[in-house]
Amino acid sequence: MAATTTAVFGPPAERSAAGVRSVIRAGGWSEHTSGLVPHCVQGNVVILPASYAADFLRYCQRNPKPCPLLAVSEPGDPCLPTLGADIDIRSDVPRYRVFRSGKLCGEPTDITPLWRDDLVAFVLGCSFSFEQALLDSGVPLRHLEHGRNVAMYRTNVATVPAGSFRGPLVVSMRPLRAADAIRAVQITSRFASVHGAPVHLGDPTLIGIADLARPDYGDAITVQSDELPVFWACGVTPQAAIERARPELCITHAPGKMLVTDLANAALANA
Amino acid sequence: MAATTTAVFGPPAERSAAGVRSVIRAGGWSEHTSGLVPHCVQGNVVILPASYAADFLRYCQRNPKPCPLLAVSEPGDPCLPTLGADIDIRSDVPRYRVFRSGKLCGEPTDITPLWRDDLVAFVLGCSFSFEQALLDSGVPLRHLEHGRNVAMYRTNVATVPAGSFRGPLVVSMRPLRAADAIRAVQITSRFASVHGAPVHLGDPTLIGIADLARPDYGDAITVQSDELPVFWACGVTPQAAIERARPELCITHAPGKMLVTDLANAALANA
Repeated sequence: MAATTTAVFGPPAERSAAGVRSVIRAGGWSEHTSGLVPHCVQGNVVILPASYAADFLRYCQRNPKPCPLLAVSEPGDPCLPTLGADIDIRSDVPRYRVFRSGKLCGEPTDITPLWRDDLVAFVLGCSFSFEQALLDSGVPLRHLEHGRNVAMYRTNVATVPAGSFRGPLVVSMRPLRAADAIRAVQITSRFASVHGAPVHLGDPTLIGIADLARPDYGDAITVQSDELPVFWACGVTPQAAIERARPELCITHAPGKMLVTDLANAALANA
Repeated sequence: MAATTTAVFGPPAERSAAGVRSVIRAGGWSEHTSGLVPHCVQGNVVILPASYAADFLRYCQRNPKPCPLLAVSEPGDPCLPTLGADIDIRSDVPRYRVFRSGKLCGEPTDITPLWRDDLVAFVLGCSFSFEQALLDSGVPLRHLEHGRNVAMYRTNVATVPAGSFRGPLVVSMRPLRAADAIRAVQITSRFASVHGAPVHLGDPTLIGIADLARPDYGDAITVQSDELPVFWACGVTPQAAIERARPELCITHAPGKMLVTDLANAALANA
């Protein structure tokens, strides 16, 4: 894929988030965005009718670790100027998923024809931002080394409901040696707007995970005998809550095909 | 003891570190200092002849987590002005231990008669400072609830030697639930000058501890099934290195009977 992305976007060192978005907006890229502009924040996208948006906003406010809000649009306005002056949320994501009453009914690359005056766009932080900081500090992430998706699990920890949005906290798990787990707590604590510090480490049964070898989402990964499983709140949590709420319309990014913003990952660090 | 300390030092809210030291200096107190001036830093004291002091200083520099240096005196000078304008290290510790060639040969309350022109005093941070920060943040510390000393263990992790000073890293262990362990990493990371972040958590055998129920120093404490053992570098590490080096003269504080300094615990936090 490196050759392909270079052919499409130019060499990584010369890319900007705005340049990448302009290619995506013109229909030139509908694939994964992982690593496209490594120092820039990528966001999960959720678009809901205004009648659901107030409840979803309160759901995010009440559950900030799994639902770290980076931006919310005005109703009917496809712009998100705090994330990039030129952003048009109807065209700037490589591929979308359209759900009607909870049912997936399309994966377009542009949602301009579906846009309505009452739609509100939410952008939520994702773990790409803190994973880059972990790698930069020498903390190894085996799922990336193996080219796999991170392992994710439903827990027995309930999120705080708001309106029709409710459901279990979903967590991602990364196996780390103790010294790296301690370092990872330090590093991810600085990134409160992209899930922040772990929510649990050690015994998975204490948060209702019966078998680490059987994740509910993503790919299984082995925890070695000298490692601890370390669990972070995961952006699949709000997706699961939306599925359960079955709004008449919901549009999200397709997995891994995210909004690339102008924000620097480093700018999200608290200190 | 609360009634006794109030009788000797006055009510806690009206105490100052300098006032407490003046009582100790006059011979009015030779007991534990724990909690005497809760917001002030207390230090471990090591006094060595100059011929050993250079090696010991390098030992501390090479092993900052177990040996966090707060101050070092000029040779022959009993003052430590950065820790308190009036401090006289010959009289301001409630009780000392005097070792000659590694052998304990006295526990005086004043070492003025033993002072020499070549003695160098070292003051090292201790975990009292971060324990107060943990309690302030609602992280429970069971050994304090039970009125016990913390459990300490020799590990299979070697410190970096300097001259005749060498030996295993000694750690203290506090059992914590996972969420409290994560919070404890965050809080103690801010206190690099008093041991800082944990060095290990989880499986004790990975650092050479065969049986948590049999600590090498301090009192055993039970780790409940929903808890992890969390390990911090411990100030007993340099004491054990000094015992092994057997200098012709070494004077330390007696356990728990520390130097009370003017520094505020909060002032040691990095950010």
